[in-house]
Amino acid sequence: MTVPRRHDPQSRGFASDNYAGVHPEILAALAVANGGHQVSYGEDAYTEHLQEVFRGHFGEQATAYPVFNGTGANVVGLQAMTERWESVICAETAHINVDECGAPEKVAGLKLLTLPAPDGKLTPELIARHAWGWGDEHRAQPRVVSIAQTTELGTCYTPEQIAAICELAHGHGMKVHVDGARLANAAATLGLPLRAFTTEAGVDVLSFGGTKNGMLLGEAVVVLNPDAVRGMLFLRKAAMQLASKMRFVSVQFEALLGGDLWLRNAAHANAMARRLADAVRGLAGVQITQQVESNAVFVILPRDATARLQKRFRFYTWNEQTGEARWMAAFDTTEADIDAFAAAVAQELREG
Amino acid sequence: MTVPRRHDPQSRGFASDNYAGVHPEILAALAVANGGHQVSYGEDAYTEHLQEVFRGHFGEQATAYPVFNGTGANVVGLQAMTERWESVICAETAHINVDECGAPEKVAGLKLLTLPAPDGKLTPELIARHAWGWGDEHRAQPRVVSIAQTTELGTCYTPEQIAAICELAHGHGMKVHVDGARLANAAATLGLPLRAFTTEAGVDVLSFGGTKNGMLLGEAVVVLNPDAVRGMLFLRKAAMQLASKMRFVSVQFEALLGGDLWLRNAAHANAMARRLADAVRGLAGVQITQQVESNAVFVILPRDATARLQKRFRFYTWNEQTGEARWMAAFDTTEADIDAFAAAVAQELREG
Amino acid sequence: MTVPRRHDPQSRGFASDNYAGVHPEILAALAVANGGHQVSYGEDAYTEHLQEVFRGHFGEQATAYPVFNGTGANVVGLQAMTERWESVICAETAHINVDECGAPEKVAGLKLLTLPAPDGKLTPELIARHAWGWGDEHRAQPRVVSIAQTTELGTCYTPEQIAAICELAHGHGMKVHVDGARLANAAATLGLPLRAFTTEAGVDVLSFGGTKNGMLLGEAVVVLNPDAVRGMLFLRKAAMQLASKMRFVSVQFEALLGGDLWLRNAAHANAMARRLADAVRGLAGVQITQQVESNAVFVILPRDATARLQKRFRFYTWNEQTGEARWMAAFDTTEADIDAFAAAVAQELREG
Amino acid sequence: MTVPRRHDPQSRGFASDNYAGVHPEILAALAVANGGHQVSYGEDAYTEHLQEVFRGHFGEQATAYPVFNGTGANVVGLQAMTERWESVICAETAHINVDECGAPEKVAGLKLLTLPAPDGKLTPELIARHAWGWGDEHRAQPRVVSIAQTTELGTCYTPEQIAAICELAHGHGMKVHVDGARLANAAATLGLPLRAFTTEAGVDVLSFGGTKNGMLLGEAVVVLNPDAVRGMLFLRKAAMQLASKMRFVSVQFEALLGGDLWLRNAAHANAMARRLADAVRGLAGVQITQQVESNAVFVILPRDATARLQKRFRFYTWNEQTGEARWMAAFDTTEADIDAFAAAVAQELREG
Repeated sequence: MTVPRRHDPQSRGFASDNYAGVHPEILAALAVANGGHQVSYGEDAYTEHLQEVFRGHFGEQATAYPVFNGTGANVVGLQAMTERWESVICAETAHINVDECGAPEKVAGLKLLTLPAPDGKLTPELIARHAWGWGDEHRAQPRVVSIAQTTELGTCYTPEQIAAICELAHGHGMKVHVDGARLANAAATLGLPLRAFTTEAGVDVLSFGGTKNGMLLGEAVVVLNPDAVRGMLFLRKAAMQLASKMRFVSVQFEALLGGDLWLRNAAHANAMARRLADAVRGLAGVQITQQVESNAVFVILPRDATARLQKRFRFYTWNEQTGEARWMAAFDTTEADIDAFAAAVAQELREG
Repeated sequence: MTVPRRHDPQSRGFASDNYAGVHPEILAALAVANGGHQVSYGEDAYTEHLQEVFRGHFGEQATAYPVFNGTGANVVGLQAMTERWESVICAETAHINVDECGAPEKVAGLKLLTLPAPDGKLTPELIARHAWGWGDEHRAQPRVVSIAQTTELGTCYTPEQIAAICELAHGHGMKVHVDGARLANAAATLGLPLRAFTTEAGVDVLSFGGTKNGMLLGEAVVVLNPDAVRGMLFLRKAAMQLASKMRFVSVQFEALLGGDLWLRNAAHANAMARRLADAVRGLAGVQITQQVESNAVFVILPRDATARLQKRFRFYTWNEQTGEARWMAAFDTTEADIDAFAAAVAQELREG
Repeated sequence: MTVPRRHDPQSRGFASDNYAGVHPEILAALAVANGGHQVSYGEDAYTEHLQEVFRGHFGEQATAYPVFNGTGANVVGLQAMTERWESVICAETAHINVDECGAPEKVAGLKLLTLPAPDGKLTPELIARHAWGWGDEHRAQPRVVSIAQTTELGTCYTPEQIAAICELAHGHGMKVHVDGARLANAAATLGLPLRAFTTEAGVDVLSFGGTKNGMLLGEAVVVLNPDAVRGMLFLRKAAMQLASKMRFVSVQFEALLGGDLWLRNAAHANAMARRLADAVRGLAGVQITQQVESNAVFVILPRDATARLQKRFRFYTWNEQTGEARWMAAFDTTEADIDAFAAAVAQELREG
Repeated sequence: MTVPRRHDPQSRGFASDNYAGVHPEILAALAVANGGHQVSYGEDAYTEHLQEVFRGHFGEQATAYPVFNGTGANVVGLQAMTERWESVICAETAHINVDECGAPEKVAGLKLLTLPAPDGKLTPELIARHAWGWGDEHRAQPRVVSIAQTTELGTCYTPEQIAAICELAHGHGMKVHVDGARLANAAATLGLPLRAFTTEAGVDVLSFGGTKNGMLLGEAVVVLNPDAVRGMLFLRKAAMQLASKMRFVSVQFEALLGGDLWLRNAAHANAMARRLADAVRGLAGVQITQQVESNAVFVILPRDATARLQKRFRFYTWNEQTGEARWMAAFDTTEADIDAFAAAVAQELREG
């Protein structure tokens, strides 16, 4: 049976990078890995090779554990870094706090100690507010600082900022976790190799995102510091994140990371976001609310303009109270897409 | 970048149906769903259409919730059927008891009440042993009977047997869950539509397996009785089983279930298992230990013969104590594969 | 064997009301309930009678479930009010957030949505910040607003303030939980019966504290709205909060609540705190930081004075950054205790 | 207010040792510890001294952590012995499996691997059935063998039997936990000091029961091997088992264990059970089903006789299918109680 196409493959919006599909090179890789039998649950040739690929990016101590999705990657990694009675310091806006339906608490029993971070970025000063109480049995013991690179608000830490966080954390016996659902976008923004702001900055464990950067599905928990985790294999399975036909997750990562596709995709998405920001920045009524340091533009328009625009293009209102919206570019967003959207923004503002 | 092939696409073994790859019709479907943007997290056109496909198989009340893997499907479904203090009756050999690294207990806090079932099948008599104690606060309250169709031991319930279990369970206010990782194989064996031994037998919720029957990845929780569950959408997310680019899971299911691919694949795998059983049944030293009612053959050979055979073909020793092995056929197993393997069995037995 | 006394029964400090012992009337009640056999786990005559006692205070719909401690009461009650995927809105300073080693997250899988509340009190305006996102599967669904009466900071809600919170919460389909570890102190401050600011204000479930008000041990989950909970008996047992010899917990509550001992003890402790506040308020260098509306005084002294004072009397520094300390009175604190302590405060301030 | 007596202090039955009240020496100890302030949460003089008392019984490496109840002791201890992905081997009849409403699974996420044990006792041969699969990520890793001394069925391991279990367990890298809710009864039966069949047999951690042996309330997790646990203090708090006024739990233990009260009480209860068994053993229709090695008699009578007897005396039918009943003696059971009950048994049998 041939499945019919049920959607318009030329339609693209600005709601999220996970609205995009699969990059053709990655789709092609699935066919390469197909055919014949391969040992399931990660003992296949593609997963084995993948370790080499990740070590190339993150250093010789790195080990990658492919999982299904970002929530899974975060919760598996955080569990491996903590005892049952420990807690995780993060930004109020962190994905683990806001967008995972309480999975860290529910699946892992983890307490999150949140901090206000208007630009999505923690600092040593902020972290210090929760960095106390070790040895006090009444307090879920702070053991991990979890940051996102890039953040939920599209901002990007410098390597120095991450190193300063790691230094503070390690000085207190804490570990550092990076939610890197968009780590590739950070590398593109910083113009640095992935290890420069992870391994070399002192990060212990990260979630590396593939799905938002052109994969069909797949993330990886990347352990940079082997001493920072326990029980990774067991926790991945018990968290229901172990793929039986793992070769098909791993080969996607190989297609993404084996060459420069990861960087091409991310740099392109970033460039499209900047193009959009540049196009609307000067328009009356437009307030860009965050630094455009990845593939997202956070913006406040007059509410009526936003409303009209959302009838024509799908995107999310990020903050109902302020009216702040988020516009996202993806690996497949075209210059023409951006220009058409920017023109629409201008038009709707004029009609206000 | 083009990813190189790292495996022999003509090599097939007998270890597990999840060693197989993706059926070409399903791989093709991924390309159909690709391109352009689609709303993530299940609001896409393919997931929407999928409901119709599942209703066609399971009846008008059915709703399907795609997830990543079988453990995820089981744990999401069982949580949706239970309160925090309830328990699940199952066979000792059940996948949820043996092969999920304690995910039901750890993720869902569920207590499993296990029963010995040498052929993998529960009966009303067995279930009755645990069917007591409602209202006693010291006892995790039995609320679900979970069976597998086909079972971990390759056996297949008749519709009447499942109906009898449902009748007993419902009579006690319990619900019935079916782990249907190989439900298609059961339909092929029984020569019945899927609904005949699920919906029509009184089953409330099932896990429907796609991965082992030719999909790249994907299972579905199928709710047959809407009154038997609460919070499906939230529990799927909190269990980290919500795919962002869900269209690519759903379109695989459409390719599988929209026509007869599901049945062709399963019937073929079953036939290959029967062919293997038939070929070795008469050989001296061969003891087939379970009814061959799906795509698995459970068999005891002399230990030395098994050891030699495992050097040539990968398969699992199921029970170290008895030496019982499991041989599995997949959708892509060929008659020549079987004949070569059967010849090898005969040869190794002769050399003993 | 006679156990020797290992402490000075005349020594009293200002660290916490749980440093105090047992009120003599309550100790005497233990002997009354002793002797002979009584059905365990709550089917005894004292627990049965206790329901009448609690109904007298909280109305005809109230049901009390004795438990061991305050953390247990909170976690049992909150679980009974929530589904697995729901969350609880509370103050950052709440006991459930700060002092329970993550038990709500770990035992119940609950996400806490915290709010800054410098005086420990939530308001409808604060709660509104988290009161959104129902139906969005990515968000742990807000279902309970949990407040403390009196608060961790010794402040006391008026009945109107609680009613306003209940109105907001109920309007959103949320329920209201009160951590009443010091509910008796609130009644004494307000000069109102317990029901006036709980049942009659719309509260659904509360933790009622006995330990801090003169009991040896014992709290109760009091369900004011039977529709707000499910599975209380099972959850109490599964949370390991079911006493086998429950008569000895229940009879303490009867001694406390059957007459006016609860009010005498609380009013006395409150009066002692006020006496202390009044004695030091005018001293140079003393800043009382919270309204003295229960049995606690929050105060900032010069750090050197605090240090010297802590060598003579045990009390806690509440906030290391500001130097704020907490002084607590208990049911057994005497006027002489207060006067001696106030004199010491004055003395240490003079020596600074 | 004086609380009225609501029960007959001369009425005693045979349902459970936790139907009994508090031994007078223990009640008196509460008064000794009363008065004045003591640091809460275990920093008091009585809890400090308690360590010496427990070391006297269990050896210099022993540390005792008082908790509220037996379920709490078991779940705290087992958590401290396990990683998140590990499992516990126990008898089907174990309290942790049967009587804790799933607390080990729900609170700790622990999987229990159960074994049939008609007399309640595990053996190395039984344990071996589950002692496999380390390193296999699909299997919740067996890490603890949990036995009960005495067992739920009133039977008692010899020191040699426990040592053999410890040897097997340790040989596999597993640890041994003893549910010692009735450990004192075992010591009385064996005529041995407590350490002879715990510390000296190789046991790592135990739950030591106080409540059933004459305390008002209180159990202790006793860590015999410090290397076998992690995070005891945090886990006790997070499991909601940390008493604020701990002096009153600890002083009870001192009254029990500081002299020989623990042994007097247990030996008496055991003797009363034996007296009962001896009195009815020869009666036609009486089948004593378990060795009487503690304070319980398991017995099958004709069902009509049991029914008539239960109208006169409270006791539990243990097994509805076989009609097996459990008769328990307590520290306060008198010879006259036994003789009257035995006479009633004889009478009801005659009337059958």
